[in-house]
Amino acid sequence: MSSFPITDKTEITRLAKRGSYDKETVYSILDEALVCTLAYCKDNQPFQIPTGFCRIGNKIYIHGSVGSFYMRELRDKKQPVCISITLLDGMVLARSAFHHSVNYRSVVIFGVPELVTDTTELYQALEVFTEKMCPGRWADIRKPTEGEWKATMVLSMEIKEASAKIRVGPPKDDEEDYDLNIWAGVQPVKLERKAVIPDPALKSDIAIPSYLL
Amino acid sequence: MSSFPITDKTEITRLAKRGSYDKETVYSILDEALVCTLAYCKDNQPFQIPTGFCRIGNKIYIHGSVGSFYMRELRDKKQPVCISITLLDGMVLARSAFHHSVNYRSVVIFGVPELVTDTTELYQALEVFTEKMCPGRWADIRKPTEGEWKATMVLSMEIKEASAKIRVGPPKDDEEDYDLNIWAGVQPVKLERKAVIPDPALKSDIAIPSYLL
Repeated sequence: MSSFPITDKTEITRLAKRGSYDKETVYSILDEALVCTLAYCKDNQPFQIPTGFCRIGNKIYIHGSVGSFYMRELRDKKQPVCISITLLDGMVLARSAFHHSVNYRSVVIFGVPELVTDTTELYQALEVFTEKMCPGRWADIRKPTEGEWKATMVLSMEIKEASAKIRVGPPKDDEEDYDLNIWAGVQPVKLERKAVIPDPALKSDIAIPSYLL
Repeated sequence: MSSFPITDKTEITRLAKRGSYDKETVYSILDEALVCTLAYCKDNQPFQIPTGFCRIGNKIYIHGSVGSFYMRELRDKKQPVCISITLLDGMVLARSAFHHSVNYRSVVIFGVPELVTDTTELYQALEVFTEKMCPGRWADIRKPTEGEWKATMVLSMEIKEASAKIRVGPPKDDEEDYDLNIWAGVQPVKLERKAVIPDPALKSDIAIPSYLL
């Protein structure tokens, strides 16, 4: 099974047993998450941008307007960024306050974004991005015009350094606390998709598509 | 109504109408979110840590082990950090690919974390943190021992520079696209708490507490 190299930046030193460098593990977290956080530095001042993203192969893609300040900065400065993704899976309720925790799957990636200029790659990234937001959507909608493509900037980043950190399972209490009369367990949390809300301006004869039911 | 100052770092230039500097708006997003992402720089290389947090007044609190590398770094270096929080509210499905968007509420905060040494503030932060994870939990659990308090590091950060960015409502399509026979609307998403899973090691006579039902 293929793994990312363990580097100075990605080595997990704290609770190392929760760490993973396995590519399939990292990819599965990336593919489930709808949003990431991108961080960059300017004179050692950190900035963060929450943004949508998608993965194709070993690359991450983000997009934005060609007028976006940070997209232009990232395009022009070819600077190192850090991207993180966190999926929250549950509240871990131990008998002791000290051993309360959360179940989660997170990924941290390091790399340098670059402008996507190949139109085939650009089109594919936007299609995958849209399909991730809503599987089945791309075939249904009005495709971008030439002008819309020109107004959209797509940046890609090869995933060279990445690690995942995962906690699963029940709480772990101190041995002597298992005898206490305190309830313990996990309260799962999950990001769920709900029943759709039609646009108030929707034409009256348009049914909800099957991929949204 | 009280607002955060608009600064070079927090001014929202892209889609400025989605921006807010209102303290109550920022606080309400912070109080709903269970996890944040903290970014810092080291020789202009950005790093990110996903972590739980809570807010008391105009301060954000994070905590970790006194053995945690990044907690020690933050404690010792008194360096600028950026904290971001994103709540995803829905997929905005427009008639055109170009106008697809997401509904969200995000906050970006800039500041310098410092070690909490006052024990009253420390105890309060951990209680608020636990209550945020699971309202009603603090009264029920074994409180930290002296040794556990000593093993826990809490950092606080005064919220001096902060902005929120929010998108709500239906898609906005180009005028000529409203006539297309394409379904449009919003698919809401929501992080939901599910039915609890008792610890397999739970004593058999302990019922699920009322605050978890």
